[in-house]
Amino acid sequence: MTDQSAVHDSARRARTAAIDLAVASRAAKDAALRAMAEALLAECPAILEANAVDVTRAREAGTSEAMIDRLRLDEKRVAAMAAGLRDVAGLPDPVGEVVRGSTLPNGLELRQVRVPFGVVGIIYESRPNVTADASGLCLKSGNAALLRGSSSAKASNQAIVAALRAGITAVGLPADAVQLVPGDNHESVKHLMRARGLVDVLIPRGGAGLIRSVVEESTVPVIETGVGNCHVYVDADADLDMAEKILINAKAQRPSVCNAAESVLVHAAVADAFVPRAIAALGAAGVTVHGDAEFVRLGGPSVVPAVEEDWDTEYLSLDIAAAVVGSLEDAITHIRAHGSGHTEAIVTGSQAAARRFVAAVDAAAVIVNASTRFTDGGEFGFGAEIGISTQKLHARGPMGLPELTSTKYVVTGEGHIRG
Amino acid sequence: MTDQSAVHDSARRARTAAIDLAVASRAAKDAALRAMAEALLAECPAILEANAVDVTRAREAGTSEAMIDRLRLDEKRVAAMAAGLRDVAGLPDPVGEVVRGSTLPNGLELRQVRVPFGVVGIIYESRPNVTADASGLCLKSGNAALLRGSSSAKASNQAIVAALRAGITAVGLPADAVQLVPGDNHESVKHLMRARGLVDVLIPRGGAGLIRSVVEESTVPVIETGVGNCHVYVDADADLDMAEKILINAKAQRPSVCNAAESVLVHAAVADAFVPRAIAALGAAGVTVHGDAEFVRLGGPSVVPAVEEDWDTEYLSLDIAAAVVGSLEDAITHIRAHGSGHTEAIVTGSQAAARRFVAAVDAAAVIVNASTRFTDGGEFGFGAEIGISTQKLHARGPMGLPELTSTKYVVTGEGHIRG
Repeated sequence: MTDQSAVHDSARRARTAAIDLAVASRAAKDAALRAMAEALLAECPAILEANAVDVTRAREAGTSEAMIDRLRLDEKRVAAMAAGLRDVAGLPDPVGEVVRGSTLPNGLELRQVRVPFGVVGIIYESRPNVTADASGLCLKSGNAALLRGSSSAKASNQAIVAALRAGITAVGLPADAVQLVPGDNHESVKHLMRARGLVDVLIPRGGAGLIRSVVEESTVPVIETGVGNCHVYVDADADLDMAEKILINAKAQRPSVCNAAESVLVHAAVADAFVPRAIAALGAAGVTVHGDAEFVRLGGPSVVPAVEEDWDTEYLSLDIAAAVVGSLEDAITHIRAHGSGHTEAIVTGSQAAARRFVAAVDAAAVIVNASTRFTDGGEFGFGAEIGISTQKLHARGPMGLPELTSTKYVVTGEGHIRG
Repeated sequence: MTDQSAVHDSARRARTAAIDLAVASRAAKDAALRAMAEALLAECPAILEANAVDVTRAREAGTSEAMIDRLRLDEKRVAAMAAGLRDVAGLPDPVGEVVRGSTLPNGLELRQVRVPFGVVGIIYESRPNVTADASGLCLKSGNAALLRGSSSAKASNQAIVAALRAGITAVGLPADAVQLVPGDNHESVKHLMRARGLVDVLIPRGGAGLIRSVVEESTVPVIETGVGNCHVYVDADADLDMAEKILINAKAQRPSVCNAAESVLVHAAVADAFVPRAIAALGAAGVTVHGDAEFVRLGGPSVVPAVEEDWDTEYLSLDIAAAVVGSLEDAITHIRAHGSGHTEAIVTGSQAAARRFVAAVDAAAVIVNASTRFTDGGEFGFGAEIGISTQKLHARGPMGLPELTSTKYVVTGEGHIRG
């Protein structure tokens, strides 16, 4: 069988499974999620054995220890996957929610109701826990999941999916609700991206390169996730103690994630007071500052002179780009030119400045007097997150269960015809 | 200047205009819409003169009279465009609507607020009234419009856009809120479709070929509109008088539009009673029936035997595909195989049948005991419509002003950091 027919056959099986999932009750879906959790725990030894194969292969290939840590599973991590599935069982079912409804002047009853997409394709990188997390969120929202994980995690993903499918069938739902895309070469990803009509939406999760290639090559609608070049802007009216705490938290609390800050902008009016203490606090947190001329002037030799590309870099490390701006409007212009539309924060005591920043900055999340790190499905109270959308179509910002659904209009009459 | 830089420059000017539009008040936008309407009326002679050029050129090229009728403007049609803009001024502003809001356990205030997309590209076919309609809807929703009309309507579109821009600047909003894409070859459409990062969303409006090519070639997110292979299913429990009225209305009231019925399915239990009268009524309305063996058996020589492709054809004419099905489930299976996900109707007195049909049929609109012709932004009470989405991402079904917006999370704290 060629790759294409294998991938498309698997998408067709997913579509068939999706028919049953779309009308499955919340009780049935929650029972499946709990059975999936139990199966993961029961199959933990097999999953760890498969994972050991992946880890050995990665080590032989010279993979960095940081990457191997992302790949590695242990009993605690498998238990966390199971707990995640149980948590999803506890969340409200988005399917069937009436989003909008009215009785039209002619007496027709109009309801806009949430329905599953159908088949959701997820393309993701090394972490095998995404396999369980994404499967659970898709199943709860009534969607069949077509998973394309990293080839480096192939054995782990196969073992996890085998356990999940066993759990699903144990409660009478179709096993093909969760499938790994067959094949592990780039061609198989390509066939998934071109399976328009078979796959309803693709969600790439991973680095900027992966996401760009999916966006450019896919004919299936894509929800773009993740790249975050987030700024903290310290306004003329900022409480500087607050600004320092927010800046350090946004940059250093977990630098490897997309909602960490990558740039700080300081209003010229508070530069003399704030820049030296910011540099000291960032230094104490182990952060290298890539500063503009003002930062270099005020900070001395500890500041690395910034080059143009620093303003556009998502470091994901203990580095930060730093500049002094002449005004709030200059900060907005800088963010417009360099931001990635993820999360932008202002620290200010001025109501007018906050209002202007919120209105003028075009990003999934605009934050006043808090850390950029709060842009997160868990922090926002969504209970779970399939990713953070940085596009404007369909979903923007953290995506929970409702973002994994579409809607359908249901119109009820008593013989109405149009005049 | 190469086509690409001309198209991208125009997109950049649209982005700049979009910055002002995003923060424009409802009062300013409504004033612009009314000024645009006045300018259309004031420039009516110039618009009609330009239109005459297009019509002459089309006639010389041997265009059909039906197409020329779609292209032709007169004083009444220009007045209708102006009235449409005034109607949009009367609609609520979607921008700023708080879609969701809460105070998180840590005291952070979370608001999800509607914001404009930014730059909306519209690719459309012959009717020049779309130029005014789409411009008005984009402006009201705070978006800059980049319009790519048919080259056959080029002079008309230029005259209309000149009037609209004069209206917009008369009230102090940026003229580049409405622009025609420069160039009229296929290359210029291609550059628009690849202007990712400059154009936020593309909406193709036109035939199936246009829409397919935009979907396949675009790297800008697309909202797919329009193809409707809509079914009317007459259930075993249908009131046959009601079924006949709905069928005739759905098929014949306006056969050229996407929400007209293209197929009728009749439950075997009522085939003897319904098929002959349906054939007679369809015949009286001038409709040619392309029937399966049962229709041919019950209807005699007036029924054209259907071939396989009839089940998938969007006739947009006085033709209908017709089949007898053994059960409600067979009807659902047929629709799943051949429907285009636009509008599907059931006629039934059975609550159970209606409930099953609504749950199992996957379409933008599912209609019980009413004509498919009701799937329409105007009929649904949206006041205006930019198109009917047949995709599941972002918007599904008739799209009004809210569907021309994205959202932004606004998070407000008092120095909150993440632990």
